[in-house]
Amino acid sequence: MIKAGIVGGTGYTGVELLRLLARHPQVALEAITSRQEAGMPVAELFPNLRGAVKLAFTDPKDAPLTGCDVVFFATPNGVCMQHARELLEQGVRVIDLAADFRIRDVTTWETWYKMKHACPDLIEESVYGLPEIFRESIRSCRLLANPGCYPTAVQLGFLPLLESRAVNLESLIADAKSGVSGAGRNAEVHTLFSEAADNFKAYGVAGHRHLPEIAQGLSEMAGQSVTPTFVPHLTPMIRGIHATLYARLTKSVDLQALYAQRFENEPFVDVLPAGSHPDTRSVRGANACRIAVHQPQGRDTVVVLAVIDNLVKGAAGQAVQNMNIMCGCAESMGLEALAILP
Amino acid sequence: MIKAGIVGGTGYTGVELLRLLARHPQVALEAITSRQEAGMPVAELFPNLRGAVKLAFTDPKDAPLTGCDVVFFATPNGVCMQHARELLEQGVRVIDLAADFRIRDVTTWETWYKMKHACPDLIEESVYGLPEIFRESIRSCRLLANPGCYPTAVQLGFLPLLESRAVNLESLIADAKSGVSGAGRNAEVHTLFSEAADNFKAYGVAGHRHLPEIAQGLSEMAGQSVTPTFVPHLTPMIRGIHATLYARLTKSVDLQALYAQRFENEPFVDVLPAGSHPDTRSVRGANACRIAVHQPQGRDTVVVLAVIDNLVKGAAGQAVQNMNIMCGCAESMGLEALAILP
Amino acid sequence: MIKAGIVGGTGYTGVELLRLLARHPQVALEAITSRQEAGMPVAELFPNLRGAVKLAFTDPKDAPLTGCDVVFFATPNGVCMQHARELLEQGVRVIDLAADFRIRDVTTWETWYKMKHACPDLIEESVYGLPEIFRESIRSCRLLANPGCYPTAVQLGFLPLLESRAVNLESLIADAKSGVSGAGRNAEVHTLFSEAADNFKAYGVAGHRHLPEIAQGLSEMAGQSVTPTFVPHLTPMIRGIHATLYARLTKSVDLQALYAQRFENEPFVDVLPAGSHPDTRSVRGANACRIAVHQPQGRDTVVVLAVIDNLVKGAAGQAVQNMNIMCGCAESMGLEALAILP
Amino acid sequence: MIKAGIVGGTGYTGVELLRLLARHPQVALEAITSRQEAGMPVAELFPNLRGAVKLAFTDPKDAPLTGCDVVFFATPNGVCMQHARELLEQGVRVIDLAADFRIRDVTTWETWYKMKHACPDLIEESVYGLPEIFRESIRSCRLLANPGCYPTAVQLGFLPLLESRAVNLESLIADAKSGVSGAGRNAEVHTLFSEAADNFKAYGVAGHRHLPEIAQGLSEMAGQSVTPTFVPHLTPMIRGIHATLYARLTKSVDLQALYAQRFENEPFVDVLPAGSHPDTRSVRGANACRIAVHQPQGRDTVVVLAVIDNLVKGAAGQAVQNMNIMCGCAESMGLEALAILP
Repeated sequence: MIKAGIVGGTGYTGVELLRLLARHPQVALEAITSRQEAGMPVAELFPNLRGAVKLAFTDPKDAPLTGCDVVFFATPNGVCMQHARELLEQGVRVIDLAADFRIRDVTTWETWYKMKHACPDLIEESVYGLPEIFRESIRSCRLLANPGCYPTAVQLGFLPLLESRAVNLESLIADAKSGVSGAGRNAEVHTLFSEAADNFKAYGVAGHRHLPEIAQGLSEMAGQSVTPTFVPHLTPMIRGIHATLYARLTKSVDLQALYAQRFENEPFVDVLPAGSHPDTRSVRGANACRIAVHQPQGRDTVVVLAVIDNLVKGAAGQAVQNMNIMCGCAESMGLEALAILP
Repeated sequence: MIKAGIVGGTGYTGVELLRLLARHPQVALEAITSRQEAGMPVAELFPNLRGAVKLAFTDPKDAPLTGCDVVFFATPNGVCMQHARELLEQGVRVIDLAADFRIRDVTTWETWYKMKHACPDLIEESVYGLPEIFRESIRSCRLLANPGCYPTAVQLGFLPLLESRAVNLESLIADAKSGVSGAGRNAEVHTLFSEAADNFKAYGVAGHRHLPEIAQGLSEMAGQSVTPTFVPHLTPMIRGIHATLYARLTKSVDLQALYAQRFENEPFVDVLPAGSHPDTRSVRGANACRIAVHQPQGRDTVVVLAVIDNLVKGAAGQAVQNMNIMCGCAESMGLEALAILP
Repeated sequence: MIKAGIVGGTGYTGVELLRLLARHPQVALEAITSRQEAGMPVAELFPNLRGAVKLAFTDPKDAPLTGCDVVFFATPNGVCMQHARELLEQGVRVIDLAADFRIRDVTTWETWYKMKHACPDLIEESVYGLPEIFRESIRSCRLLANPGCYPTAVQLGFLPLLESRAVNLESLIADAKSGVSGAGRNAEVHTLFSEAADNFKAYGVAGHRHLPEIAQGLSEMAGQSVTPTFVPHLTPMIRGIHATLYARLTKSVDLQALYAQRFENEPFVDVLPAGSHPDTRSVRGANACRIAVHQPQGRDTVVVLAVIDNLVKGAAGQAVQNMNIMCGCAESMGLEALAILP
Repeated sequence: MIKAGIVGGTGYTGVELLRLLARHPQVALEAITSRQEAGMPVAELFPNLRGAVKLAFTDPKDAPLTGCDVVFFATPNGVCMQHARELLEQGVRVIDLAADFRIRDVTTWETWYKMKHACPDLIEESVYGLPEIFRESIRSCRLLANPGCYPTAVQLGFLPLLESRAVNLESLIADAKSGVSGAGRNAEVHTLFSEAADNFKAYGVAGHRHLPEIAQGLSEMAGQSVTPTFVPHLTPMIRGIHATLYARLTKSVDLQALYAQRFENEPFVDVLPAGSHPDTRSVRGANACRIAVHQPQGRDTVVVLAVIDNLVKGAAGQAVQNMNIMCGCAESMGLEALAILP
């Protein structure tokens, strides 16, 4: 059994990790920490876990984290980097669901995240946890940077186009729509039901923290620096990201075949038949990315539609997938549940 | 392996059955029928099943149903009764998710369902599939009437009060609220998004088909004829039933203990701590009924709050639970997934 | 022109008052106060008001409130009572949309609202602003207690039954469902979109602050002390209250005629034809209460369905209606807009 | 008073027209037709109109349409063209809210709408009702083609960029998101609540009927043929369109000033301050288009955000605006109501 700990289990990625790990056949949950809720049974805060998770939240300083095989950080940005070294030194594998180790370039990271990085040397060691690209490095890594939700959808959607050098790199546009759970479980006015329901809006057009992460990923795929235009939107649904991606083709390509082949052996990427429109509910609660590729009216703009559940393939599910790879489990262990529809 | 067939797999109870059975470790799906969609791969209609269900819909007349161990009818009322006898004669167990066998009294059934019953003699043989009451009969039954969604929530909520003769039988009120999926996947104006969203209303106050089913169940519990006041409401959510039940106490009872004891050994009924308010999302996608019991201001009206997912404990999940019991599987096999929250 | 001021204009009742008053032909908006947002243009916080409301929020101490004809308090409980006397002494009429003057009995108020009342003597002078009962007193009042949202729907729904002495007073049950805007614009976890959407739950079953207000109103109607059972629920919609009311008849009554006659001349109460089920969207954005009355299966339990928009007839609209009466305007002036459907 | 008739009043544009016209100070509603609902009081189908609209639906053949000053067609495509000539000959002005007269090129129209046009000669006479471009022609027109919802948002959003020749015409992308009411009030599975709620998807990527309308409009602005990439999406909200528009700048422009000046005198187009993100609810129920313009990171891709209520500025409200212009009323008469927020 893999002994697992979770630091910061009171947010949505925390409860989603708990939902998945509680039913993972090879995982024993050892500890879940929360400074604020220390002492409260986890299932009292999250009643969906009643009967399945017996643990109470513990104060981080009392939690038996160093005895774990793997520790997940479902914390705000800037927390994992404070604790990663100590855990690594104790032989614990660390999976950060926040952004501390996602950006290779420290200066870029510090600019966008507006804080000083606590352990730049560990960034180099860390592995970016997008298994569809970095599976081999993930297998042997000790410190994993779990990708952001938007970056997961956008990178998977653009991947075949960039790897195959089929598009003009100046033309990339990612128009992305997220459910409200992407904003977390913090009490804020703009994510109140009465503000976000029956409403739709863009936000962060001037610059969103996921932009440098996306740009880094696309640049690696393309072998040269790329910065897409990235516009996130808030959609009145709980879960789900729908990325609508645009690029101008520079050569003639069988797009359907390109996508089908690239993801042929990927357990969690599903290329839909030509002409399809994936809906976000088709992945609700499931660790899956479904993709369709279009070339409207045969003109030279390609349109890619990619959907994920931001809390699963965009966060907790992908973290479990990475844990499975790191710990030698079958990659889809504990991730077989189907999406809930309707 | 249990060879299972589904008649009428294009509605919401059908897709939910498929979601559950596709991951059930002891079930092999043999056939799914639909006259209208014959030939279409199931996963094309329901993309959440892509990669997990390879079957296509078959015309009922071509489906290998008589070779199944169990056949589920996820059909409109009046279909199962046309086919049950033939299947039973072939040794197939039949589980009807519609209402054909729910009402013992044929005249009552024919009045409320506005059709002639095709096989009144089979009603007697059939078992009403509420395991919390009829588990022993279910074990050996061949023909199971899976309860309605409202009746499941209302009966489980009232059960301890009626069994213990603690309330005035003339005072029973069931104010029930359902998500829109309870109305099915038929194209109708009143369940369009633009009609049902951001809206709330009662319906069927003069009389709803679930009333005689509820009355029959409560009467059996009480040992005498009872008809509650039953008011169903349509709520702008996809899944979930919240039953708010009212009754006047006729004696002093430790309500919390009464409920805790009655459901102590029930794997799918969860009595919440005193003072709780269950929310429907705490059972979303899960085969569970969560119940809280209140006695506001210590006065003599008891208020019971019971929630289920209408498609799971209120339909497909309960059907699988019944199948497990009928076929000798562990009762919770294939039903372990936790509710999705948020 | 009526010079109007609003104290505390940053919540939902505040913005709704602004929406209505900005188009009221006899009102000149003089000031809107907010300590926190002082200096910010109102239309920056509430972009629906762009082009229609030019005012900025002002600090309460700088606002020209004493020069107003009427001042609305759209503040938390306990604020109006601190300022009412000073305004009244300057000849300003005061309309409190919070609860400071709703309860006649000071001890009861202090128990439920958990604070000491600042001016018990003014309670006596104040008038409870339910025009359907107290229209004549409202005409000449200086200090008006605008009713709560639940109490408006519940009292209007029960009114004909209690006035006509047709029901058993021990049997009254109000099962009420509210949209999330009823909880206000405060940043709180339980009203986040991801918590409240696709979910339904009861709350405050042990006791809600609107219970004593309802009990007081029903007792006045009945001529004796009445306490109903009151269970509020949170519904995933923005606006709207649906009250489902239950009572046992003690005599035979033509319920439809009773309701039709009682509200015959009421401009904002609409009794629907027999057999109807009002939906909350039929009053969305409108100052209206629509009511249907049922006697299921002819048995002795009467079921009343009453809907309002909690922010209009349940708050700001009723406040404007009261202002119209107090200031001698036509009662429906500025309140003619129809509900938005869909 | 303007005598107005509505043909086909049972859909969402019909009820929205009724909501607006019922409170228009210069309009007398003479007739509303519906073959299917003939005889039914309008307010029975649409209870928000109770007390305000006394008419019943009449069969088209019995309706006094030729005695009207203006007749609105809120019908499916292909109906208005069958009746326009007869009405025009009787001196009646005709406003078609469907697509019969939106496309100048008959062949293009017949290709996209898959029917033969009944009166190609009238297309030439008709005026496209986007007042921000064609106000002068509208003033004197007899036959008005009210624009589609997507085309209204997309054209207003692109207008200043194209008129000023500031962008590469091959780079235009319109990523548009619509509320579900845009799909109408027809009973269809894909717009059921349980299908469309908590879900997001693109549709019609291969080609949507609004594409030729948009292309025609943009081409007129640009003075040369332009076809943008247009991807519509279905969003789980009732009303609202959010168009996110992309184009590559070919010269340096003060975008904020460009937009502010272009729409300076437009009563229903509101250019937001730099850095803004309009939300659809800021125009819910109002005849308004709010626009923000961005140039992320100072790079050469301009991002325009434009929002409208698809049923108001995208349909019925714009039709009333056009009627006001055609009939010599103040352009904003009957359209002053503010958006409902929250």
